[in-house]
Amino acid sequence: MENFTYFNPTKIEFGTGKEKLIGQHLQEHGIKKVLLCYGSERIKREGLFDLVSQSLAAKGIASVELGGIVSNPVISKVREGIVMAREHQVDAILSVGGGSVLDSVKAIAAGVCYHGDVWDLFVGKTGIQSALPLFAILTLAATGSEMNPAAVVTNEETKEKLFISAPPLFPRVSIVNPALMQGVSRDYLVYSASDVIAHLIESYFTATAFPKVQSRLVESLIYTVIETTETLLTNPADYEARSQFAWTSTLALNGLTFSGAGGFSYPNHAIEHSLSALFNVPHGAGLSVVMPAWMKWYLKQNRPQFARFAKHVFGGETPEEGIAALENWFNKIGTPTRLSQFGITEADLPTVVDNVQIYVQAFGIANIYTPEVVTDILKGAS
Amino acid sequence: MENFTYFNPTKIEFGTGKEKLIGQHLQEHGIKKVLLCYGSERIKREGLFDLVSQSLAAKGIASVELGGIVSNPVISKVREGIVMAREHQVDAILSVGGGSVLDSVKAIAAGVCYHGDVWDLFVGKTGIQSALPLFAILTLAATGSEMNPAAVVTNEETKEKLFISAPPLFPRVSIVNPALMQGVSRDYLVYSASDVIAHLIESYFTATAFPKVQSRLVESLIYTVIETTETLLTNPADYEARSQFAWTSTLALNGLTFSGAGGFSYPNHAIEHSLSALFNVPHGAGLSVVMPAWMKWYLKQNRPQFARFAKHVFGGETPEEGIAALENWFNKIGTPTRLSQFGITEADLPTVVDNVQIYVQAFGIANIYTPEVVTDILKGAS
Repeated sequence: MENFTYFNPTKIEFGTGKEKLIGQHLQEHGIKKVLLCYGSERIKREGLFDLVSQSLAAKGIASVELGGIVSNPVISKVREGIVMAREHQVDAILSVGGGSVLDSVKAIAAGVCYHGDVWDLFVGKTGIQSALPLFAILTLAATGSEMNPAAVVTNEETKEKLFISAPPLFPRVSIVNPALMQGVSRDYLVYSASDVIAHLIESYFTATAFPKVQSRLVESLIYTVIETTETLLTNPADYEARSQFAWTSTLALNGLTFSGAGGFSYPNHAIEHSLSALFNVPHGAGLSVVMPAWMKWYLKQNRPQFARFAKHVFGGETPEEGIAALENWFNKIGTPTRLSQFGITEADLPTVVDNVQIYVQAFGIANIYTPEVVTDILKGAS
Repeated sequence: MENFTYFNPTKIEFGTGKEKLIGQHLQEHGIKKVLLCYGSERIKREGLFDLVSQSLAAKGIASVELGGIVSNPVISKVREGIVMAREHQVDAILSVGGGSVLDSVKAIAAGVCYHGDVWDLFVGKTGIQSALPLFAILTLAATGSEMNPAAVVTNEETKEKLFISAPPLFPRVSIVNPALMQGVSRDYLVYSASDVIAHLIESYFTATAFPKVQSRLVESLIYTVIETTETLLTNPADYEARSQFAWTSTLALNGLTFSGAGGFSYPNHAIEHSLSALFNVPHGAGLSVVMPAWMKWYLKQNRPQFARFAKHVFGGETPEEGIAALENWFNKIGTPTRLSQFGITEADLPTVVDNVQIYVQAFGIANIYTPEVVTDILKGAS
């Protein structure tokens, strides 16, 4: 195994009814006033907002609201949140929603403590030294943001989708109640499955060395995603499957799976970010298009690991069978596997390839993922 | 999945040379003077002590030494440490050694902050509200103590081996350098393998419900213990196997594996504690005697999980095959599977059975593990 540091101080409150603990947790952290961020008004219609408000009120915690955060969250909304947080002098930020709300909250929490424009933090103009404490109540399991210190936000002016990551951005407490996820649409369920699998395979395939114990953990988690997604497509109310899906999503990107992995990268994410940034494609849907095409291109560089993947996840006998099985499974559950399903044509490819260069640079893999290589990969997804 | 809270703030520094970071970590936590605890003088002969001393000195951190901590650590030594810590007004405790040193350090750290006798904390006379910050450099992978808030210590007067567990006892930083474990004896390697497997199977078999995703993680870890132990028996210098063994040991008892498990217990540990307390049997050796016997007795209560175990760990087809395979493997690697190997005879059983009642009460399972049941289990190990 390569040397590594594992540190993850986020407290996870997992299970039914846990959202009622939010007031208590904020109180334990000495919070008096919070910026409560959310996406659609659905949380009000479905009663979650009331539950949270009551929990805060019971502990005497004041709140101001910032709603309307969208999927593929944007930096303009983050700036709006920073202004509000300062104006109302809140001492914490609370996310009630999925990964897009939570990533916006992380950016707001960091931005409040930075004197310049928050986008500076995304382009690496300066590091993140501090942030307001942040808390989450999760309503969609996909991004793993609830137990890591990273956030991805799109600058809608520059069409860049970039990430930040720094220890102050670990949520202090993340509440994961699978029952709150029961209403997730069929489409977002399958996109989430794709997203979780993407988190699991990036280091698994690209690491210069990936310890066998870690391979086994990753394969266990991918297998669980497949099994629970199929159960949930048949019965969205299956709490056991919903909870195992949610917990797997959390474990997929909390640092566990790539402990001791040699240098690895996020090529699928780098390429997908372009699809989201340019065409506002749902992140998971973009990933299920990119992954099989990337795998076919990358296969020759790590055939033994693709053989493991085929055998331990799908019971296949050749490396190629594993890739085909994953693509077939994406087709079966109904998440896209072709660019054409987004209306993206061959004529769009040069624009995408250009835009991808931003992300492969951000991820430090521009030397491998040249415009020619990215064109090859994307043609495989056409 | 059952509701659960996951929280583990210990920072793990894993890999070669990491022990040199100890001074820096102590400094970052504002530590000026530390009680440095260890077991045998081996760490001085092998140079680790010098490395640690240099790292502390480089950051201007003073230290006082407490050596001579033994396996199955005893409360008298803990009391000695508490006196020293107070006398020298240290502001942290540092463990350099295996689980026995670390568990003693946890007890010292808690005892310093308690006005009465430290054994009160073990018998539950009062809770643990605070502790001095504690740090660890691990030289043996087995107990998992480096990433959890629990400690087990024996009271040599009362012949009780009891545990404490409280959030202040999470190590702030644990340094796990597998290269430091290369000199572990053959015996202690196989006892450690048994200990790690015991940590993995207790909740796996006894939980009222054990999520499938968690079963897969546990089976992955058990498989890794078996694989890496066999490699290390052939080649103790195999760093890759040593590191995967060490990391598996950490994961086996850091809270990950039993997340979402329904009510579970530690019957194998409860029974083994008696063997250690009465006969000073090495903990892992005692566990490899207890486990197969306990499994044969418990099998009827959870056949499906034993079938999983047989299939996914050993490729067996019946639940019975899994138990037999584990016992055979213990025999193969040379960790005991019979009480007679410790010289414990049928005549000793009543004394053991009596003593076990202390631990089944401490673990809250005295209603199941009556003297009759424990006698039956131990007869199976005779």
